[in-house]
Amino acid sequence: MTPTVKAILDKYESDCPGTKANLARMLMQGRLGGTGKMVILPVDQGFEHGPARSFSVNEPAYDPHYHYQLAIDAGLSAYAAPLGMLEAGADTFAGQIPTILKLNSANSWATERDQAVTGSVDDALRLGCSAIGFTVYPGSEHFFDMAEEIRELSLEAKSVGLATVIWSYPRGGELSKAGELALDVGAYAAHMAALLGAHVIKVKLPTDHIEQKEAQKAYENFDASTQAKRVAHVVKSCFNGRRIVVFSGGAAKGSDAVYQDARDIRDGGGNGSIIGRNTFQRPRDEALAMLDRIIRIYKNEE
Amino acid sequence: MTPTVKAILDKYESDCPGTKANLARMLMQGRLGGTGKMVILPVDQGFEHGPARSFSVNEPAYDPHYHYQLAIDAGLSAYAAPLGMLEAGADTFAGQIPTILKLNSANSWATERDQAVTGSVDDALRLGCSAIGFTVYPGSEHFFDMAEEIRELSLEAKSVGLATVIWSYPRGGELSKAGELALDVGAYAAHMAALLGAHVIKVKLPTDHIEQKEAQKAYENFDASTQAKRVAHVVKSCFNGRRIVVFSGGAAKGSDAVYQDARDIRDGGGNGSIIGRNTFQRPRDEALAMLDRIIRIYKNEE
Amino acid sequence: MTPTVKAILDKYESDCPGTKANLARMLMQGRLGGTGKMVILPVDQGFEHGPARSFSVNEPAYDPHYHYQLAIDAGLSAYAAPLGMLEAGADTFAGQIPTILKLNSANSWATERDQAVTGSVDDALRLGCSAIGFTVYPGSEHFFDMAEEIRELSLEAKSVGLATVIWSYPRGGELSKAGELALDVGAYAAHMAALLGAHVIKVKLPTDHIEQKEAQKAYENFDASTQAKRVAHVVKSCFNGRRIVVFSGGAAKGSDAVYQDARDIRDGGGNGSIIGRNTFQRPRDEALAMLDRIIRIYKNEE
Amino acid sequence: MTPTVKAILDKYESDCPGTKANLARMLMQGRLGGTGKMVILPVDQGFEHGPARSFSVNEPAYDPHYHYQLAIDAGLSAYAAPLGMLEAGADTFAGQIPTILKLNSANSWATERDQAVTGSVDDALRLGCSAIGFTVYPGSEHFFDMAEEIRELSLEAKSVGLATVIWSYPRGGELSKAGELALDVGAYAAHMAALLGAHVIKVKLPTDHIEQKEAQKAYENFDASTQAKRVAHVVKSCFNGRRIVVFSGGAAKGSDAVYQDARDIRDGGGNGSIIGRNTFQRPRDEALAMLDRIIRIYKNEE
Amino acid sequence: MTPTVKAILDKYESDCPGTKANLARMLMQGRLGGTGKMVILPVDQGFEHGPARSFSVNEPAYDPHYHYQLAIDAGLSAYAAPLGMLEAGADTFAGQIPTILKLNSANSWATERDQAVTGSVDDALRLGCSAIGFTVYPGSEHFFDMAEEIRELSLEAKSVGLATVIWSYPRGGELSKAGELALDVGAYAAHMAALLGAHVIKVKLPTDHIEQKEAQKAYENFDASTQAKRVAHVVKSCFNGRRIVVFSGGAAKGSDAVYQDARDIRDGGGNGSIIGRNTFQRPRDEALAMLDRIIRIYKNEE
Repeated sequence: MTPTVKAILDKYESDCPGTKANLARMLMQGRLGGTGKMVILPVDQGFEHGPARSFSVNEPAYDPHYHYQLAIDAGLSAYAAPLGMLEAGADTFAGQIPTILKLNSANSWATERDQAVTGSVDDALRLGCSAIGFTVYPGSEHFFDMAEEIRELSLEAKSVGLATVIWSYPRGGELSKAGELALDVGAYAAHMAALLGAHVIKVKLPTDHIEQKEAQKAYENFDASTQAKRVAHVVKSCFNGRRIVVFSGGAAKGSDAVYQDARDIRDGGGNGSIIGRNTFQRPRDEALAMLDRIIRIYKNEE
Repeated sequence: MTPTVKAILDKYESDCPGTKANLARMLMQGRLGGTGKMVILPVDQGFEHGPARSFSVNEPAYDPHYHYQLAIDAGLSAYAAPLGMLEAGADTFAGQIPTILKLNSANSWATERDQAVTGSVDDALRLGCSAIGFTVYPGSEHFFDMAEEIRELSLEAKSVGLATVIWSYPRGGELSKAGELALDVGAYAAHMAALLGAHVIKVKLPTDHIEQKEAQKAYENFDASTQAKRVAHVVKSCFNGRRIVVFSGGAAKGSDAVYQDARDIRDGGGNGSIIGRNTFQRPRDEALAMLDRIIRIYKNEE
Repeated sequence: MTPTVKAILDKYESDCPGTKANLARMLMQGRLGGTGKMVILPVDQGFEHGPARSFSVNEPAYDPHYHYQLAIDAGLSAYAAPLGMLEAGADTFAGQIPTILKLNSANSWATERDQAVTGSVDDALRLGCSAIGFTVYPGSEHFFDMAEEIRELSLEAKSVGLATVIWSYPRGGELSKAGELALDVGAYAAHMAALLGAHVIKVKLPTDHIEQKEAQKAYENFDASTQAKRVAHVVKSCFNGRRIVVFSGGAAKGSDAVYQDARDIRDGGGNGSIIGRNTFQRPRDEALAMLDRIIRIYKNEE
Repeated sequence: MTPTVKAILDKYESDCPGTKANLARMLMQGRLGGTGKMVILPVDQGFEHGPARSFSVNEPAYDPHYHYQLAIDAGLSAYAAPLGMLEAGADTFAGQIPTILKLNSANSWATERDQAVTGSVDDALRLGCSAIGFTVYPGSEHFFDMAEEIRELSLEAKSVGLATVIWSYPRGGELSKAGELALDVGAYAAHMAALLGAHVIKVKLPTDHIEQKEAQKAYENFDASTQAKRVAHVVKSCFNGRRIVVFSGGAAKGSDAVYQDARDIRDGGGNGSIIGRNTFQRPRDEALAMLDRIIRIYKNEE
Repeated sequence: MTPTVKAILDKYESDCPGTKANLARMLMQGRLGGTGKMVILPVDQGFEHGPARSFSVNEPAYDPHYHYQLAIDAGLSAYAAPLGMLEAGADTFAGQIPTILKLNSANSWATERDQAVTGSVDDALRLGCSAIGFTVYPGSEHFFDMAEEIRELSLEAKSVGLATVIWSYPRGGELSKAGELALDVGAYAAHMAALLGAHVIKVKLPTDHIEQKEAQKAYENFDASTQAKRVAHVVKSCFNGRRIVVFSGGAAKGSDAVYQDARDIRDGGGNGSIIGRNTFQRPRDEALAMLDRIIRIYKNEE
């Protein structure tokens, strides 16, 4: 284990050796192993948007094995997916890459700002996962319920040596659409995930918008002009850097924008990316090339 | 066990030997045993429409033994029914045909797009069933609740060696009536059943309608002109064929239409039919003749 | 045990010896013991209508012992009542007559079509009961909840050797007042009780009204002109006679009407009566005389 | 033990020796010990009306020890209070007077006809209580929930040898304000408490008003002209006197009215009084004098 | 242990040695150890207002270690925070200061008067806490639910030797904004916390407003002119001083006001302060100086 990873693990003061071992597995895996950086492949698009919108642009991606193999071949840190997706390759790829079982899921037809809990800690254990994943919607009228669900699941996960990854996506309630990506909102959402006991926090890259009137004063001397500075603020909001924070790539977009995001995350002190549609919706060769370049950015090689 | 069945079982990577054995029981049963195809007799019409509308057209069908015997005599793969129906013949027909306990049920008087959970995994065990059956309504405002119910039931079933069959019927919410049978909707619904961890997925045969505006682009180059191609798309949406997919026959209709459906399911790579009203609402001789011909279609004998 | 009772018990294929023994206790009890017919005394009027409306017309009936003794002296098959009523005589009359603990109850002030669960299987066990009793309201917006309650209670009862009696009373939702007693509705309600796993089904005597438009066709050739034929249809709807079906006497009425009901139940193949207000709201001598005559009717003695 | 108490205990036919022992403790305690009569001190006014409205008129009553000591010094049968009140004196007064842990509580700011469950059977056990206390509101839209709560709590209490005291206070729903104290309503509420399995039933003294139209006929020959006759009707409605029934004193009032109530309860065959505000809101000397006189009334000494 | 602390512990009559030991740990800790007074540092502002509004004014406070160290260096009695905040320093500061795990939390975006339960007793145990903390909102339409949550959590805490601290903050329902700080309301809220079984009760300093019309009479002879007298009334309302009562400092304000509050709390017989924003939102040196002076006030040194 590298000193960098050891230093990260030391910040998880309350965890049992089992949970630390699983965090270490993700931090020591693949081409970024030992650097303290992570790139995670998440494939929950099938739930979110359905199979055709997710995979028809790259037909081999209909097969769950495709994603396991992509994550392995690209040298990523972990692969995250809902129950059925992991079940379909759990044996073939056992031990080849750490997996994160996403325990709740939304879909395109949902009319409420909530998700269904579609997996359990017992599922994560029998599938050999390293962590559970869970989405909360701060701001939603269902946030209290979601917070109570992850309280129970995370306590159970910690008791059996699994790590907890929280996707913290502000939405609903009185938040404006622009507000969902606002800097103050994103930092608050990340902080709440940390308070809920997450080991790894996943948020979206924030804009320089400040949503909350009451927060204007706190930000009036803050320089939010670059994405890297905004990333640094989110990281600081996660216990001053005591928690791993990764950022999502968002909707599929041009590769230059993807690389610039990675540089900003790196320069702001973020721990890496969760990047899904931008990879599996490209041909495999292009995806591998893109992931290679992202990894080199995180390794400071470009 | 045939190589075909072995290949199917190998795709269930996360299941214990008990669950695989029960899948094998269904796949090796009856005249389609070993072919990888299945024809299942479901009799939950009594719950759905009441006894007279279900059975008065063929009076012997009031007796639960009638259906067990029909499924056995026709050489089918399994018999699926709610609690009371299975209890009424569980001993007489023990070991003669695999049974699927349908764990939730609706009825003609229900005003919500939901079902009542009317059976349990413990019931399935004491009745010697091979699988549990469960209906979800993707699109309904109750879908999250239904998904959470099957999460718990399926986890429990897997822990005691039973298989899970999910009926995935889109309805409610913002879906139009035509949309419930749309190709994109059916493929999405089947995919969600797979993500929820189903071993066997049951959906309706889709039309060529595309319901979701956001999905138009994904289908613009897709040839949906034949039913077989639509079946193939649904099968692909179930983890690229890694899950068993069977299709329902729908309301009672002419026998030629039934045979054509079977041919299309076969040609599209589907695993077979769940066919209820089209059989038990005909005189027994006609039903046996019809099932004989369906089975021959699946065996490529006509 | 008589061949008649043995034949009935044989139809309960999935039950453990304990549950069969408790069914046998009720079928072998009293003056109808061995005939396959039952007359049950239910006293839940205190919950339904309050003590004065229930008992002031026959003051000794305020005492719970009165009802135990009435059922015993009349040679009935079983006595059914809510928790407190059974507790008040459980020791004095232990072993003298099978008891059924009614597990849910409504009252005159309830504003919803639901009942409160006021007893448990553990209560039934400690009180030495032979069965649990439970009311469902098919058609009500609470039916799904009630069905899920009895699913749990009945599973638990079966696991400890108790029998389950379901009162199936259609009401609420879109059913008209006349519809609650309609033939198609009553047969459907009885069938649902059978599907829910009841050993004994209790319904009201149906009229010749057909409520559901969709069911008109199924009944167009059915001769519903006599009450006996309607009884036979309900019995057939309960798994073709594989389940015990008893009918309620309804509100207090003239004794000739009561006797005619009993004859019709007998002639239609029903298993007997649950008769409460028509007995305990009459002076004890009259009640005993009435019950004597009803029993003689079921014994084909008049 | 006196024959009178033995006769009362014999009416609790279904209870274990532990529960009977706790009933006996209350019936054999203090100056009424052995008479079959009880006077209970309840102090839940702090929850209901807040501390100042409850205790400022008699400042020593702010101290929980005051009430324990008052009940002991007055020679009462038991002391009933919510969790914190009992915790604050449980050790000092252990074994000196039977206690009843009130398990649910309302407060002045509640907007619904319900109570919060603020204690548990485990609390009652660790505090050495003889009984649990619970309020139901027959008529309220929350009555079903409350009935289901006491079903669970009472079953648990009976399984560990505790007695159950139910406060049955009709309110809410379609009941008029006058109706809450009506004779028919009070008798019905008392009867429901008995049906729910209460060992001791606490109701308010009823007026001669008849609330329910459907009950008019049942009362048309009933002489409700004296309070003693109304008490007798309530007692009869509790299984013809097979259950202990005590009556509440209501709001603070003149002492003559309090004594008259006690005489009427005694003459009507009631088992005694639960009397709170009328005692602890008077100076201690006056309260002791009042309780002395009430006790003498119950002992037929005046 | 000092006689003062021993006398306080003796008032907790129903608690096990483990819980008393944890109360003793807080009462014997730091510079106020042994005096019966406490100053507690609570840091749940991150949940309530987000990280920037809480910590940007004093940037080192972004680090959870900062608060542990501040509480230790200032010689405080205990440190209270939500799950993530305690997890982040639980090992580094183990055994150096008693901790209180705050089990529920609100946030700026919540639209209901409720809090999410974000921690559990098991969490408190594994983090080595001395107590659990929980907020109730008397007056809110969610108060019953909150009361039932703390009933369960507090019972569990007591069974494993932890103490319970209840933050009792009236709000919602029919209470006016001024009423939330009214004397009668604050005393009632404190009393309810005591009734719910709290060991330590935390309320806000009340004004001399009387909110409830029904309570006017009870206060008409009460001299509420000084804050010390109002504090004394709240303390009296907590079982006449049998429970530890601490007061919150409220929003950040001038230091003179903070010192005057402390003097009033002391003079009124309160047990101390919970003081958060007024300390960690000042530079560390100023905060330490302020806490030093508050402690000296409680030690009667100024």
